[in-house]
Amino acid sequence: MILVVCPAPALDITYRVDALVPGGAHRVRGQQERAGGKGVNVARVLRAIGADVSLVAAVGGPTGAQITEELASERLEAGLVPTPVPTRRTVTIVEPTGSATLLSEEARLGAWDDLAAAARAVIGSASVVVISGSFPADAPAGAAGDLVRACHDAGRPVIVDTSGAALADAIAACPTLVKPNAEELRALRAGEPVEIVRELAASYRTMVVASRGPEGVIASDGSQTWSARPGRVVVGNPTGAGDALVAGLAAGLERGDPTPAMLADAVALSATAVAAGAAGEVDLDLYADLRDGVAVTRVEDQP
Amino acid sequence: MILVVCPAPALDITYRVDALVPGGAHRVRGQQERAGGKGVNVARVLRAIGADVSLVAAVGGPTGAQITEELASERLEAGLVPTPVPTRRTVTIVEPTGSATLLSEEARLGAWDDLAAAARAVIGSASVVVISGSFPADAPAGAAGDLVRACHDAGRPVIVDTSGAALADAIAACPTLVKPNAEELRALRAGEPVEIVRELAASYRTMVVASRGPEGVIASDGSQTWSARPGRVVVGNPTGAGDALVAGLAAGLERGDPTPAMLADAVALSATAVAAGAAGEVDLDLYADLRDGVAVTRVEDQP
Repeated sequence: MILVVCPAPALDITYRVDALVPGGAHRVRGQQERAGGKGVNVARVLRAIGADVSLVAAVGGPTGAQITEELASERLEAGLVPTPVPTRRTVTIVEPTGSATLLSEEARLGAWDDLAAAARAVIGSASVVVISGSFPADAPAGAAGDLVRACHDAGRPVIVDTSGAALADAIAACPTLVKPNAEELRALRAGEPVEIVRELAASYRTMVVASRGPEGVIASDGSQTWSARPGRVVVGNPTGAGDALVAGLAAGLERGDPTPAMLADAVALSATAVAAGAAGEVDLDLYADLRDGVAVTRVEDQP
Repeated sequence: MILVVCPAPALDITYRVDALVPGGAHRVRGQQERAGGKGVNVARVLRAIGADVSLVAAVGGPTGAQITEELASERLEAGLVPTPVPTRRTVTIVEPTGSATLLSEEARLGAWDDLAAAARAVIGSASVVVISGSFPADAPAGAAGDLVRACHDAGRPVIVDTSGAALADAIAACPTLVKPNAEELRALRAGEPVEIVRELAASYRTMVVASRGPEGVIASDGSQTWSARPGRVVVGNPTGAGDALVAGLAAGLERGDPTPAMLADAVALSATAVAAGAAGEVDLDLYADLRDGVAVTRVEDQP
């Protein structure tokens, strides 16, 4: 079983309006609501490709009740810890031009210890652990590193996809694999992306897989460095492509795939997600089609 | 008992952001959530001034559950009809400049007949009925007029504060009193405000009280026309001033006050609301203080 820990789920609300005018009054022309947070989408993708997946998250209030109901109706196995604080919302305002304006409520749980305890209780039953998404503002300092160390203590491989202070904290605990995007990579260290990936991997004995949008990934385990590029560009919605990449890496790690095969699978799954209507959905035929087209090459060592 | 019918309540969410940039990503710096809809605020004001008030509304989904809980915690007596459709939200994005951007979800109940039946069941127990706020998009044509006629059938005075097609429909059913604002008045008929007020009052045998912001109101019963102005300008938040005006008119109608006294009270209550921190709150000392200052004068007939 792949265990996905989602430190701060959200109720994602999308509003379509004719045109967003600051200071104006707008009728919402159409709306969607969906349980979100990166970990939730990683779990959805893993389930869509047939993996045995379990989600651990903490939810509360009316928004949390809505998320609980939705995950149950999707039959996504989830250990949901109750929180005294209502689960945060995100509001995305989409205009016909495609412009998207995002408002994110601050994530607070009021129950970090309960979530951490619930995660620790099932780490030993997992083949791979994924920690995915931002950490709540009221998580204690060192919370991300503590979760990584709990996986080490249980002898379980752990993948981390988060940002900011939590990402730096998690990397210092030497996770099995970490997946920064270009922005997160720049926030960690200055320099050329390939060099940062190689240095981080060597410094922290971790596999670093840096996502680069339509160009695929650069990955390094400190001694070897690879580039994995999709065979063709898929047009669509890049939201959720990073989560699908993480899901593909987790599935590859669980199967014990060699690194190039794991990267090829994950990059294909990420490209498949771009074509999906909503984050977490997977067209299995397209996935199979794209898998063979991914080009994985060794990146030459610097002289 | 004053019965307030709120055809489409809402969960009003306010987000504070540093600056709203279309296309950008924003952290919400502070947020508030409150049961809203004009009728809910009218009921709150009536309760704050000591009136015996009962609210009838229809709510559903997680947002409806949140409204139900909030009204119970405020001890606001409410007959809440369950709807299969989640209650709408409004999102107001406030910037430090004071600029406020409003997004309103479309109101749907999926249960208009249940709400109308619940209202009809208690109209006979009311001394005055207030129909306040917008009508849901799925209310049948003529729904507003039907509610007004149900009040006539039960021999109860009825005040209407709504807009658009529902307002035109309600006026055609000759309510006891109707309170358009300047924009609603213009949408009903072209011409000088005083003339429109007088003509509508005469045509429909209704008392028309047109609100004019800090200038108070112009009111007519078709034969006599008044202006009522607050004695001084109150600085603050005009949101909810119209609802407080309606609450004041309902209380005056219940007491059987002569029109000038009713107008003076209602204009003072409306000005008091401007000073309040949130819609529905009333500073009773300020209210008493402002009441004596309202100037009610007869508007001369046109030659």
